[in-house]
Amino acid sequence: MDILKINTKSREELVNVTTMLQEKIKANGWENGLLFVYSPHTTAGMTINEGADPDVARDILNTLKRVIPPSLDYTHVEGNSDAHIKTSLVGSSVQVIVENSQLRLGTWQKIFLAEFDGPRTRTIWLNFYTSPEN
Amino acid sequence: MDILKINTKSREELVNVTTMLQEKIKANGWENGLLFVYSPHTTAGMTINEGADPDVARDILNTLKRVIPPSLDYTHVEGNSDAHIKTSLVGSSVQVIVENSQLRLGTWQKIFLAEFDGPRTRTIWLNFYTSPEN
Amino acid sequence: MDILKINTKSREELVNVTTMLQEKIKANGWENGLLFVYSPHTTAGMTINEGADPDVARDILNTLKRVIPPSLDYTHVEGNSDAHIKTSLVGSSVQVIVENSQLRLGTWQKIFLAEFDGPRTRTIWLNFYTSPEN
Repeated sequence: MDILKINTKSREELVNVTTMLQEKIKANGWENGLLFVYSPHTTAGMTINEGADPDVARDILNTLKRVIPPSLDYTHVEGNSDAHIKTSLVGSSVQVIVENSQLRLGTWQKIFLAEFDGPRTRTIWLNFYTSPEN
Repeated sequence: MDILKINTKSREELVNVTTMLQEKIKANGWENGLLFVYSPHTTAGMTINEGADPDVARDILNTLKRVIPPSLDYTHVEGNSDAHIKTSLVGSSVQVIVENSQLRLGTWQKIFLAEFDGPRTRTIWLNFYTSPEN
Repeated sequence: MDILKINTKSREELVNVTTMLQEKIKANGWENGLLFVYSPHTTAGMTINEGADPDVARDILNTLKRVIPPSLDYTHVEGNSDAHIKTSLVGSSVQVIVENSQLRLGTWQKIFLAEFDGPRTRTIWLNFYTSPEN
């Protein structure tokens, strides 16, 4: 297992971690298999989406905020229920294919930590799985 | 493969299954790898979120109900379209790391069956995957 | 790895790919393990839901459109921000159990490509993972 540390900068932010993940794959000598990328947090998840135009990330965050407003008649006293709900919607992990130590993503895909209650120091856990047939 | 049986008690409920999963890991002698936790249902999914304060689960369920109301101009005659939609949003499975036969979760994370059309008897399918390198 | 090609027919569509996946499992001689089904697109994802009544798919698509409208004050100039957002909500991949070269799904479950910005030619990437113990 390996760990990635990320300092997020706003309350809501999609942090592109693709390059950092690619470096970890090389550093660990992971060659052919499945990379499991896991957020151990309950107010930040993982998602895959477009990385070329930063407006896409902005639209995702703004629309999620419109659908799940920060202030509502929530009962959780910490005041971050919206962040918990969004985390369950995007999910806590993603998995991506690794071939010859390279992330195999679609043309426009990047991997993001979805911060919903920052700024904070976040960690991401990485595991690599291969098949006996690989 | 192993199976977990759960009797849910309300129409909508987040059932914390973490302890039951941990017991299954021990009983099966699963040591180091990835636990795949799968809901074979179309009106109940799996999610990871905070388990310490039950208000978080309440806020998640109430907000999902507000965003995806039980009664709308749905065409599906069974009257549970909201439950199908929510299942696709949270997803049918989660995966978590197992180390030395212990679930490796974040400090506040618990694993929940997300019941959206109970009360019912639900099953969860468990598989364990290790890598040749582990 | 194997690839599935799908020509979608509408802007929004849930395409049932279960039979195509089952054929690929047979053709590849995959026996016991986990099938990883990955969409390399940023405006189309993967989801598992009911396949018996096509009204369920219709209700899912119509409700997602109501929650994430196609026209809003989006900043992304391509005009398909709704499709990007929905993709992050349903997710880019699903995983399902394979036993004796058969998909092991729940009674009502089918696997769908969730097209949110068609019609287009889409690809799905398939990987199969087994455990040394299987």
